[in-house]
Order: sequence, then C-alpha cells, then structure tokens
Amino acid sequence: MKIGKATVPRTAICTADEHTIAVRGHDLARDLIGKVSFVEHFFLLLTGQLPSAGQAAVLNATLVAIAEHGLVPSVQAARMTFAAAPDAMQGAVAAGILGCGSVVLGSSETAGRLYAEIDARVQCGAALEAAALEVVQARRAAGQSVPGYGHPVHKERDGRVGALFAVARAAGTDLRFIAIAEAVEALLPQVLNKALKLNVSGAIPAVLLGAGFPVQALKGVPILARTAGLIAHLFEEIQQPIGFALSYQATREMVYDGVLPEGFGAHT
Amino acid sequence: MKIGKATVPRTAICTADEHTIAVRGHDLARDLIGKVSFVEHFFLLLTGQLPSAGQAAVLNATLVAIAEHGLVPSVQAARMTFAAAPDAMQGAVAAGILGCGSVVLGSSETAGRLYAEIDARVQCGAALEAAALEVVQARRAAGQSVPGYGHPVHKERDGRVGALFAVARAAGTDLRFIAIAEAVEALLPQVLNKALKLNVSGAIPAVLLGAGFPVQALKGVPILARTAGLIAHLFEEIQQPIGFALSYQATREMVYDGVLPEGFGAHT
Amino acid sequence: MKIGKATVPRTAICTADEHTIAVRGHDLARDLIGKVSFVEHFFLLLTGQLPSAGQAAVLNATLVAIAEHGLVPSVQAARMTFAAAPDAMQGAVAAGILGCGSVVLGSSETAGRLYAEIDARVQCGAALEAAALEVVQARRAAGQSVPGYGHPVHKERDGRVGALFAVARAAGTDLRFIAIAEAVEALLPQVLNKALKLNVSGAIPAVLLGAGFPVQALKGVPILARTAGLIAHLFEEIQQPIGFALSYQATREMVYDGVLPEGFGAHT
Amino acid sequence: MKIGKATVPRTAICTADEHTIAVRGHDLARDLIGKVSFVEHFFLLLTGQLPSAGQAAVLNATLVAIAEHGLVPSVQAARMTFAAAPDAMQGAVAAGILGCGSVVLGSSETAGRLYAEIDARVQCGAALEAAALEVVQARRAAGQSVPGYGHPVHKERDGRVGALFAVARAAGTDLRFIAIAEAVEALLPQVLNKALKLNVSGAIPAVLLGAGFPVQALKGVPILARTAGLIAHLFEEIQQPIGFALSYQATREMVYDGVLPEGFGAHT
Repeated sequence: MKIGKATVPRTAICTADEHTIAVRGHDLARDLIGKVSFVEHFFLLLTGQLPSAGQAAVLNATLVAIAEHGLVPSVQAARMTFAAAPDAMQGAVAAGILGCGSVVLGSSETAGRLYAEIDARVQCGAALEAAALEVVQARRAAGQSVPGYGHPVHKERDGRVGALFAVARAAGTDLRFIAIAEAVEALLPQVLNKALKLNVSGAIPAVLLGAGFPVQALKGVPILARTAGLIAHLFEEIQQPIGFALSYQATREMVYDGVLPEGFGAHT
Repeated sequence: MKIGKATVPRTAICTADEHTIAVRGHDLARDLIGKVSFVEHFFLLLTGQLPSAGQAAVLNATLVAIAEHGLVPSVQAARMTFAAAPDAMQGAVAAGILGCGSVVLGSSETAGRLYAEIDARVQCGAALEAAALEVVQARRAAGQSVPGYGHPVHKERDGRVGALFAVARAAGTDLRFIAIAEAVEALLPQVLNKALKLNVSGAIPAVLLGAGFPVQALKGVPILARTAGLIAHLFEEIQQPIGFALSYQATREMVYDGVLPEGFGAHT
Repeated sequence: MKIGKATVPRTAICTADEHTIAVRGHDLARDLIGKVSFVEHFFLLLTGQLPSAGQAAVLNATLVAIAEHGLVPSVQAARMTFAAAPDAMQGAVAAGILGCGSVVLGSSETAGRLYAEIDARVQCGAALEAAALEVVQARRAAGQSVPGYGHPVHKERDGRVGALFAVARAAGTDLRFIAIAEAVEALLPQVLNKALKLNVSGAIPAVLLGAGFPVQALKGVPILARTAGLIAHLFEEIQQPIGFALSYQATREMVYDGVLPEGFGAHT
Repeated sequence: MKIGKATVPRTAICTADEHTIAVRGHDLARDLIGKVSFVEHFFLLLTGQLPSAGQAAVLNATLVAIAEHGLVPSVQAARMTFAAAPDAMQGAVAAGILGCGSVVLGSSETAGRLYAEIDARVQCGAALEAAALEVVQARRAAGQSVPGYGHPVHKERDGRVGALFAVARAAGTDLRFIAIAEAVEALLPQVLNKALKLNVSGAIPAVLLGAGFPVQALKGVPILARTAGLIAHLFEEIQQPIGFALSYQATREMVYDGVLPEGFGAHT
C-alpha cells in the first residue's frame, strides 16, 4: 500500500560494497575506527561533519551529564522487564528508552525549541530580554509550561548546569544560547511568580545549540545517554537482581479501591 | 505480589541528595562532566572503574565499528515506526533496538562467551588449538552455529576486523582473545568445510574482553552503538522522509498466496 | 526520587489473595472464565461494567475491522524485528505496536475527540451542522488536519464504514456520533475543497462512543486489534520467513546521495 | 543488503484492492465485521480457519484467564512509562508487553512444547505416564525447570486451572493435553520432591492445544490478553495517575551500596 509520496528511498548516511563501508564520505575501517571517538562518530553520523574539539567536548559533557540519575522510573521499568525477560536485553533497554517522554527527559528538546525561537527573534533585531519575555508569555498564554526549569530534588540550580556552562566556555563554542537560557531564568519570577532555576534539561540545549547540534535531534541526546546508563543497570541486574524486589516494594502499601466479589477473603 | 526473593532494592551505581549526584564514587557535576568522555563514563557506569586510555580507545573503536551499516532491517523498522508515529522518537529508537537480537547483532555476545570458554580451558593449562577445537566441536555437536564468522556481503575478512585488531595492539590491552578468535577462524575449514572469516561481531569481543569489558555486558555494545546510528537516521527521516517509501518498495513484488473471497477484483 | 505528588498507589481494577483473583468486583475463576468473552472482559477491565450485548457487538466489530490490513509498515517492522530476534516474540509485537502512532492508527482517537467536542456543543443546544462546522473550522484555523476521512487506497467510502454502522444500528446503541461523523463528512467538500469520505478510523469512534466506550481509551482499540494481527503475522513468519526479504526488497532501488570516500568501488 | 535467502515476500493472511480487503479468503467488510467475534477473527487470522464454537469458547476462556493480575511488574513498567511519556500510549503498552518474557508469562509456550513432546511419544505408542516421566527427566537432566507448575501466591491449584478445564470439557474439544498436564503434575513430587500444582500457564496450553491452537503461537495468547489489561491500566492511569508513586514507593527503602564521593552529604 502506498502511503504518502512513495518514492525511491534515499539516504546520505551510509552505503557499502563488498570491500568498503562508506560513512558520511569516510571509509569506516580505514578512516574512522581508531581515529575518531564514538561521540565524534555520533556527531558525524548526525550532521555529516566531524566535530571540532570544542564541539566534541560539549557533546561529551551533555551525554555524561544526563546518562545516569539512579533508580529513576525508566531504570525501574527496564530492570523489571529484564527480570521477567532475561533473554532479551534489547527488550529491557527498549522498555527503559520508552520512558524518555515529554514529561521526564523530553524537555531538553522542548527547551531547545524555545531557545531557538527566542534566538530567531534576536537574529531579526529584537532585544534579548524582550524576545525572551514575548516567547515565554506566548507559551504561557497557550497553557504550556516552560521547559528546562525547576527540579523535584534540586531546588537550587542543579550543579550540572554550571558544569555544562563551564565546559562550553572552555570549549570556545557559541555561548548565545546560554545567554538566552539565563534570560528566561531571570524573567520566570516575574512571569510565573516562582524562581525556578535552570535544570539540566535546559542547560543541555543551551550548550548544544551553540555547538552546532541540530535542534530537531536534541531528543536523541538523553536517549543515547540513558541507553548507556540502562546497560549498566542491566549488567548490575544480572549480578544483583532487584527487578522483582522493586516491583514488590512498589505495591507494599497499594490500596485496592475497587469492588470486591462476594466471599473474597472468606477462606480460612 | 512477591516474585522471587523480595528484598530491599540495592544498587551501587548512583545515588543523590539535594546537592550532589554521586556516580560510582564520583561527584557527577564536579568530577565527571567535562572531565571524562561519554565512553569513559559508560565504562565507569558499567564496571565501577574509569578505563585506562587503552581501554577507552578499544571501547571507542568497537562502538564506532558497529554503529552504522546503512538501511539494515532495524533501521528500516525504526524509520517506518517514526513515519507512523513522528511524535515519539523514543518509540522509533526502541523499535530499532528491538532488532538487536540473536540473529543480527547478538553474535558479539555469543562469540564472546565462546572465547571466554576457550580461554577458561587455556587458563587451566590446555593448548590453545586443542581448547578451541574442543569447544567448537561441542558447539557443533549441540547443533549450534559458530558465532562471529562469515558475512552475507563481506566474503573476505571484513576490513573492520583488521582495524579493530590494530587499535587493540596500539592500545596495549591484552591480546589473548584475538589469538583465540584467530585460532577458531583457522580451524573452521576443518570443522565446517567452509573458510568463514572473522566478522565484526567476532572481532568486537576479541578486543573488548582483552580490555577488561565484562562478557555479560557485551550485548550492550551493539545496542549502544546502534542507538547512535538510529538517532542519525531518525534525524534524516525528519528532513527527508523515506519510512513509507521503504514500506511501499518492500511489498511491490509481494505475492498473496492465500485464498481470495468470491467476487474479489470484480469491481470495474 | 519523588516526581509529582508521590502517594500510595491505588487501583480499582484487580486485587488478589491466595485463593481469589478479584477483577472489577468479580471472582475471576468463578464468575468470568467461561462466562464472559474476551471482548466483554476487556470492556469490564476498562470501564468496570460488563457490556450489554449491543455494546459487545459494536466493540467486537471495531476490533475485527482494524485488526489486519496486510503487510503495512507496522507489520513489516514486526516481521523484520522477529527475523533478527526470533527468541523474543514480545519484542517483535512491541515493535509493531510502536507504529500505532499519530499518523497511521492514532486517528481513531483524534477523530473521537473531534466528535466528542461537536457533541458537547450539540448537548448545549447548538444545531448539529453549525457545531460541526465551527469545530472543523477551528481545527483548520489551527493548522490541523481533519482525522477520520480519506484513505490512500479506498477512494470511495471504505466498505468497513458501512459495515460498522450497520452493526451499530442492529445493536441498538446510541447513533448520535454516527450522525456527527456524517455531518462532518458532508461539510468537507465546502471546507477542504475535497470530498474526503469517512474512513475506518472515523467510523470506529463514531460507533464506539455511542456504545459507551470512553474517548480517552479509543487509542487502545487499534492497539489491541493490531496485536492480534501482529501475532498472526509472526506465526506466519515462523513458518514462512519474509522479514529479511522485505528488508532486501525495500532497498533494491535505494539511492545513496551522500559523499563517497576516495577509492570506493575501486577494488576489482 | 541481502540477509538469508532474499526472495519475493509472500503472505497468505490478507490482501486488498481499492474495493475489498480480503482476509483469509473472506471479504472483511461483507463477511467478517459484525459476523464474527474478535476472538474468532484472531483464530482465523492465525490458522486460516474460523473456529468451532467450542474452540472459540476455549480461546476466550484462556484470554480472560490471563488478561489481568493487578499491579504486576509489567503493568508497573507500563504505568511508569506512560507517566513519563503520556503522549504515546503505544509506547507504554509496548513497555508492558516487553515483560512477557521467559520468566513471567512465557511459560505458557514452554509448557505447551513440553506437552507436545510428551504427546508425540504417546502418539507413537508410549504409555502416558512413562512418556511424561521420560520427557520431564530429560528436561531436569538438562538443568531446566518444569514450566507450568507452582505459583508464588497460589500454593494450591490456582482456581483458574479448574475453570479452564471445565470450559474445555463443556466445549467438547480434545482433552488429551489436560491428561498430559495432570500426568506431569502427578509425577512432580517424585521428580522434584515438591508437590507443585498446575498453574494457569500450564492450564492454558493444556486446553488450547486440544482446541487446535498451534503450539508455536502459544506465546501470543498472554501477549494479546495482557495488552487488554495494559490498556485498562493506562486508562486508569489517565484518570488516577500512580506511575510516579509506584516508582517512589519502589525505592523508599533503597540501599546504595556503592562508594560515595568525598564531601557527599556535607552541605548543611
């Protein structure tokens, strides 16, 4: 069945013949293996260009920052899945990745879109504070939250934010999205009546967009980073299984607030 | 419901308080972001130890080697899924990862287990060739294939194999699993009557086991590597969609060999 | 870590003790197994009430209507995944379900929301045609398409639409959402300048909402239905594998429009 | 890339032209919608034949029996995933299905294979008890457990077992796999020194194989059944969210048994 404009499939990422795997214009075996790091390779796959040292430093820092945060819901989902289906590590990783959604890790991408929208106005001549205020107010008027600010545990600015900004400054990449992110942070007390601080999901696009990382691929950063964390947790699960223990603990205080059938609990 | 020995969940990977995220004994914001690469961080998460430069070089090389091979089935599955559900990049990545199974990418792990089994005999005093022959013959006797050898396109030794071995030699990591992998390759003509050459799924454990990478986590390497490739393909899919075109092409010559209901095709 | 208002987990669907599994107030073994059909059970699980014969007939009809449409993209994704990972049928089913997204099968839900919005206006006294026009025009003004109309293959009204409407009429369930769906169909030539006909994704909510099926659960209908189709395809894949053949065909005419490395194709 | 014997894709399940969707020899709109139940349709999709009333009754009963068991790990994984990614119900269902693995729900299939193996010997003339003993002992000798017996909560024979057997008897389907399942149950005290009772995962194949359900598709039964339960839980999650509460409870007593960085907890 033809859905959409059915055409010949095209790709510019990779092709191969019997002798050579060509990746973005490079011979994989000759030019890339042993010559570039995995993160440089990821940047190449995505953009078609090898990153500068500064771009690679920023991308590495964001992936390190977001890879792991303990037994968060997606890790629990993955470990429970692995306990039930230990033959399929790929299934447990997939279950964990499926929790990289709009609520938990997706705000890196939505914050990045917000910053890009403010930047577009600034590039057209608007003043930074005015552009930030307009875009944030339009978002609020549409009933949307402001992504990238506030954290259930870290009430102050999360330490990862400052660390990422320091990496960007040392790397010499463009800092204008950091300025945008901080301009938004500065106006939140006025707009939301709450002094929410930049969190790691705001800091990631703030440094990555300045490093030439494409805004539409931002969601890939938490996905790739968390995949590393998930694999570590599944390896720990093999050695020290807690998947079923987590599930047991989760429901110890569970309340059934539905109807009970006649005779339930009457066996003695 | 209690399944298995329900206990208190334990983990040694990460904990946090309001100020600090502790990862494997390091303060994430202070000691890791900007200080270690993503691949070093992955090794740390997994093993609890930061890798040496040589270990990191080998792990980087294997992730680069296996990240991308064009429009393979798992990439097609991911691009088709993304075309149908463009709001959920995490779902499309998950669909692609689910194809990292026993047939296609899982042989890195099974080859690693084979090499580890041979190594265990060698460590107990067996000669390498004899140990390799015994283990391979036992596998054949149990009706199992020998993982890590042969490729549908690359009939010679895949160029990635030599590149990975060169990285391991330059890195100064333990080369004994390369010797094991080559000993198996040398005896295949005799055992299988086919001169199957080492492929990339054989070379990956051959270098990684020598770099101290745990055998039970080997499957994580193709999973993490392919996640990077999948994200690049999904970013390309946003810009140049081919998901439905792939699906259309796939069935252009499709044959329906079932029964047809009366009157099918009679409308004119 | 506490995300959101962490409280005691509550559920009203099912609880159990050593002797009895209680499902929505019924004793599963005594009252449900052998007494109700799977589709009645699904309605019970979802709503807390067993359906009337008419409600069950309508729900059955929609599940039958949407379960299978040949080698569509989600089926291809599932069969490719199963070919690569034959040990994990659950992974292949999951890969297929992940393609039940906003573009392909999600329009049952979005069409249902559209009909519910029109219905809310009619319940408040608006005339049907006026309410339909206002809601559809508001949608168009917001740049959104009208879900539930048009099909790449079936240019006339899909035969499944009439069949579903006939079931609803025979079942005696509320027909007012059918009237709404047809009112929208009647005004599309005027609003879109295209006479798009009701498709199966429009007909499903048109009959289900009248049968008391909750609008927020509508997306579950294509998901459950397609799961049945996917399992049938995976069973066929075991007996007559085509997963890799589909992938091969999909790229036979593939064009690589990226850069090639020096020397590519020079081996002879 | 060609993997395996690349050929023309074939299927016998469904094809369509502009006017008709043909499913297993039937016109979907004319012959199936409103004429067959969803479960009859599932049997048809899978086997190519519509089931008898008895076959449909047995299949319905097994799907009802296994659809729901409260906040089990796979339901928790799905609800946590939905809380994090509420825009993608398909992703949360997929996460739940990924937990239908070898440990938790896969034993329906493995028990079915065990019964089929015993049946093959009986068909060749062996006595039932002798055949059962041989097959079970061979399994034990290979270090494998006996699937379909024992349950962490239900120490007696789970009530669902008797209910399913009663359905099969009333349905008039072949009862010989029930006899096999009970023969295995009778010999377990002798073989395992434990009087493990038949559980629902043993009873399902015991009745389904006698109803002509194919052994290789057995894993599809818990997958389809649980999909219904998962959708009900996700609908409840929309109305009464507990995904994050489950995750919070799961780690309330969590112990971090790794290393802490210098200065951790020193902020005051």
